[in-house]
Amino acid sequence: MFRSRTCGELTIKNVGEIVTLAGWVQTIRKFGAITFIDLRDRYGITQILFGENLNNQLEENSLGREFVLQVNGTVTERSNKNKNIATGEIEVTVNNFTILNKSETPPFTIQDETDGGDDLRMKYRYLDLRRNAVKKNIELRYAVNRSARNYLHENGFIDIETPFLIKSTPEGARDFVVPSRMNVGQFYALPQSPQTFKQLLMVSGYDKYYQIVKCFRDEDLRADRQPEFTQIDCEMSFVEQEDILNMFEGLIKSIFKEVKNIDYTSVVERMTWQEAMWQYGNDKPDIRFGMQLCNLKFPAHSFPEKNNISDLIAADLAVFNDAETVVAIAVPDCSEFTRKQTDELTEWVKRPQIGMKGLVFIKCNTDGTFKSSVDKFYSEEKLKAIAQAANAKAGDLILILAGQEERTRKAISELRLEMGKRLGYRKEDEFKLLWVVDFPLFEYAEEENRWVARHHPFTSPKPSDIETMIHNNPAIENAADYLKHPYANIKANAYDMVLNGNEIGGGSIRIYQKELQQKMFAALGMNEEEQQHKFGFLLGAFEFGAPPHGGIAFGFDRLCSILGGSESIRDFIAFPKNNSGRDVMLDAPSSIDTKQLNELQIKLTPKEIN
Amino acid sequence: MFRSRTCGELTIKNVGEIVTLAGWVQTIRKFGAITFIDLRDRYGITQILFGENLNNQLEENSLGREFVLQVNGTVTERSNKNKNIATGEIEVTVNNFTILNKSETPPFTIQDETDGGDDLRMKYRYLDLRRNAVKKNIELRYAVNRSARNYLHENGFIDIETPFLIKSTPEGARDFVVPSRMNVGQFYALPQSPQTFKQLLMVSGYDKYYQIVKCFRDEDLRADRQPEFTQIDCEMSFVEQEDILNMFEGLIKSIFKEVKNIDYTSVVERMTWQEAMWQYGNDKPDIRFGMQLCNLKFPAHSFPEKNNISDLIAADLAVFNDAETVVAIAVPDCSEFTRKQTDELTEWVKRPQIGMKGLVFIKCNTDGTFKSSVDKFYSEEKLKAIAQAANAKAGDLILILAGQEERTRKAISELRLEMGKRLGYRKEDEFKLLWVVDFPLFEYAEEENRWVARHHPFTSPKPSDIETMIHNNPAIENAADYLKHPYANIKANAYDMVLNGNEIGGGSIRIYQKELQQKMFAALGMNEEEQQHKFGFLLGAFEFGAPPHGGIAFGFDRLCSILGGSESIRDFIAFPKNNSGRDVMLDAPSSIDTKQLNELQIKLTPKEIN
Repeated sequence: MFRSRTCGELTIKNVGEIVTLAGWVQTIRKFGAITFIDLRDRYGITQILFGENLNNQLEENSLGREFVLQVNGTVTERSNKNKNIATGEIEVTVNNFTILNKSETPPFTIQDETDGGDDLRMKYRYLDLRRNAVKKNIELRYAVNRSARNYLHENGFIDIETPFLIKSTPEGARDFVVPSRMNVGQFYALPQSPQTFKQLLMVSGYDKYYQIVKCFRDEDLRADRQPEFTQIDCEMSFVEQEDILNMFEGLIKSIFKEVKNIDYTSVVERMTWQEAMWQYGNDKPDIRFGMQLCNLKFPAHSFPEKNNISDLIAADLAVFNDAETVVAIAVPDCSEFTRKQTDELTEWVKRPQIGMKGLVFIKCNTDGTFKSSVDKFYSEEKLKAIAQAANAKAGDLILILAGQEERTRKAISELRLEMGKRLGYRKEDEFKLLWVVDFPLFEYAEEENRWVARHHPFTSPKPSDIETMIHNNPAIENAADYLKHPYANIKANAYDMVLNGNEIGGGSIRIYQKELQQKMFAALGMNEEEQQHKFGFLLGAFEFGAPPHGGIAFGFDRLCSILGGSESIRDFIAFPKNNSGRDVMLDAPSSIDTKQLNELQIKLTPKEIN
Repeated sequence: MFRSRTCGELTIKNVGEIVTLAGWVQTIRKFGAITFIDLRDRYGITQILFGENLNNQLEENSLGREFVLQVNGTVTERSNKNKNIATGEIEVTVNNFTILNKSETPPFTIQDETDGGDDLRMKYRYLDLRRNAVKKNIELRYAVNRSARNYLHENGFIDIETPFLIKSTPEGARDFVVPSRMNVGQFYALPQSPQTFKQLLMVSGYDKYYQIVKCFRDEDLRADRQPEFTQIDCEMSFVEQEDILNMFEGLIKSIFKEVKNIDYTSVVERMTWQEAMWQYGNDKPDIRFGMQLCNLKFPAHSFPEKNNISDLIAADLAVFNDAETVVAIAVPDCSEFTRKQTDELTEWVKRPQIGMKGLVFIKCNTDGTFKSSVDKFYSEEKLKAIAQAANAKAGDLILILAGQEERTRKAISELRLEMGKRLGYRKEDEFKLLWVVDFPLFEYAEEENRWVARHHPFTSPKPSDIETMIHNNPAIENAADYLKHPYANIKANAYDMVLNGNEIGGGSIRIYQKELQQKMFAALGMNEEEQQHKFGFLLGAFEFGAPPHGGIAFGFDRLCSILGGSESIRDFIAFPKNNSGRDVMLDAPSSIDTKQLNELQIKLTPKEIN
């Protein structure tokens, strides 16, 4: 051992002890012939005092930032105490020291607030990882990992490793593939998730499975997506949806307690997908604050019976009349926004990311009067009625968007989140869990005029919808009327867990009957041959006594980032990739030897760059 | 929940309770109008009694093996108790039941001793996994996993995930590569181990790292190798070899205790690589038994001073005189082997796997006389002297092999293990750990007439050998004399942990100085450009204060198989691949769509099959 103690543990109680420490030089301060050094290791920082007697030796072996240093010395009480750190009452007076390794001047400072830009820090990730701000994240990640494993272990789950070199069955996202040298011309795929394997384990009788496991998706990377990511992947047999929800809100509550020391004792709310969409414009609402949507005009295809509310906004106002949807939020205590502020909000919704043509507002003045951007079209009485419908109180600012249903709903949801953020309703240290349930089983894929699985092809319909699914032809005769197809209304036995407006986990009760699974594959446009080629093993397994089962997978990177109060999952991954899927530290991916290509019997055929 | 209790927990104490169980039908026994079923789940088997009243219903819904069944009924005391199982004193008398899923007749019986051959069981692995014999292995694997994590956690280690999509730096084994779609013409590699990443984490100051992690090697599969396998991967900073040995024999002892309830209190033996090779012919000796080698004639290139012992065997005997090596073992209590038995042994060593030309034996009769297959050449006196040298006692059978050094040493080692096995010295329930230390740093690669790293290029030489390494040119001028090159004698700071003759782990103290690392790369024939291309990130990291560090990796699959008393790691992997690297259940690898190939801009160029 190069040390007898760490840099984080010595206190006033150790005064007089002879110790050996090893670590990195954080700072050097010279006062005449004596020198102070802050020595840093994983556990903390200890002040080291080099007395006059060592001055010559120090000059011959001059130290610099990030040098690796071993010191042997005596723990002494400091005259000038630092109450901010655990070791702040002592220092170590050096008897002798060894420079274990030198360091070039780092390209950025190893401090919480560093001067290094993102690219530089990624290139020198091994130095970035030294910073306390990053170390805290990596340690939090481990704490979440440990806590999840403990909870699952105590609840009878067993960690079973599933393979990484599997079969390519692209459904949704693209697979990363791995050419096989021993089976020339054939490829493995890296798993997008262990989905089918965990289901097979249920067929095998392992009844409670978990794994904290890497998954891979070859997608065009949006901000904060990684080609490889980690899931807490779980599956249970002989359960219904209710059992899963209880078990896994327990998991998250247990992580809150162990990692954040938060007693999450309140009931986890539940909301149907429809409620979420109508009330928040979003299937992963942030329910730390209210400001629910008021649907002033529903799209014609849905809830025609509810559309009487649209009488409220009946006027000679093209922006509302021509819109498929008109939807409002009442922003508390903002009725006194200036023209500049409302203009800024209008610009905000007109940005390409939001894509609206404009913003209508109604100020509900504290004196009971109203002032709106559409005063020309509405009487005070009408404005008051709209305000009532929107649940606005005196002092609120009503913001109204109008336009095509999907875009408008997305925009009002973004606007709600933005206003919530500006008003300080989205507190980093407040955590609100939510289950969103009863998702649609299918989504309509316009390009191919067919159904795709909203979750995945293994998700079960609600028991009450099984008949509808079996007895109807999935083919969509009239693309324009796809919403009238019986499949459009089939609900899935699926659920998402939402934390502060982020989907942290999702799962479903699975299909376990061979015929229903075949019907599902067929509904997704897979003929029997394709079903056999891709999923023959699963259909086979369902012939030999598959139990009812279901499960969930949590996005581990995302969960950690939210618990750590960060927006970026990259901060919680030791060696992340950038938005082009590159590891800039390794400089990977990279070209490989012709010898390797020849062994794999593949050839590059790069297209001309246009 | 489809059940209120499991099939493994009901005892006489539960008599009278109404319970719901769910599981698989193991057996069906009809006695007139009543039917007994053994219902199986993960936790055990419970006997279920269907009374006369259910006879009609059972006939309408006939049950079969492996049907998934839910029963509701009353726990009752059995008249005919079964002491062999936990639930053997009770049965559940059915009130009502539901068939949750049917099953075809399984292709093999779901029993400890199954009638299914290997191929069939692999194809239907999800059924094979139902067998208790396999389930026990999977559960043992989890127990080892859990125990390792607990020990490492308690000792301050932190689990940090390293990336799977990395850079191809083939050194030794072949990489699996992954074509990148977003970086056309470039490839990721799957890690053969997280070696460089864990070293970077040490540079980052994380001082005690571990991971239980999948690794990948594209090798021609020998029996019992898998293209993907799991390591317990660990690294520590500020340590010397002694610290690592202590920490990790602690890990294995802790696993013994928790998983096998074995108190491994004895000191773990240590042996240099040289001792292992001379005394056991093998760098992973099984020390559960003695029978060490007696080197009757050393190869000329080594220990010339010791060769006086070869006077013992001096005779007009070409098989000895022409041999580079003559080596013997004394097999206890086998002097009365018949001609048939010694002939059989002779055939055994002549098999191509062993490859010897013959076997010489000396029987040390219990009456003090000797009888050998070379009586023509040696007097009784001489035989006695040889027996003395071989540490043989009266009643022993001395077996002698002669020939080319490497082959002969390997053969005598195999023969020793075979005799140990036949004589019952290799007990499945006896565990003997051993550290083999002081490996050579380099191996000579004949084809390329250069040095290769015996462990890997990051292993440090012994401190006393660093000067030799730095001040000598690695080039080998005279291939025939490579053993005289100073590099041939450089010892590595490397160690293997051996359990019952299997290498279960290996590691080293690493190089942490940039210059020494460069010298190492150069010694392996890598020029500066190649060093930068492949390992620039590591050399870079060594510029910024790399601490002294070292680590170890355990072969998790192998460790589990030894603890489980099996020769095959496949039995301890939920979904293993066969010897051609195929998953026969999935039928993977497989061909992929042209669309996928086009997106990756690669083309298959299969060679003509010869």
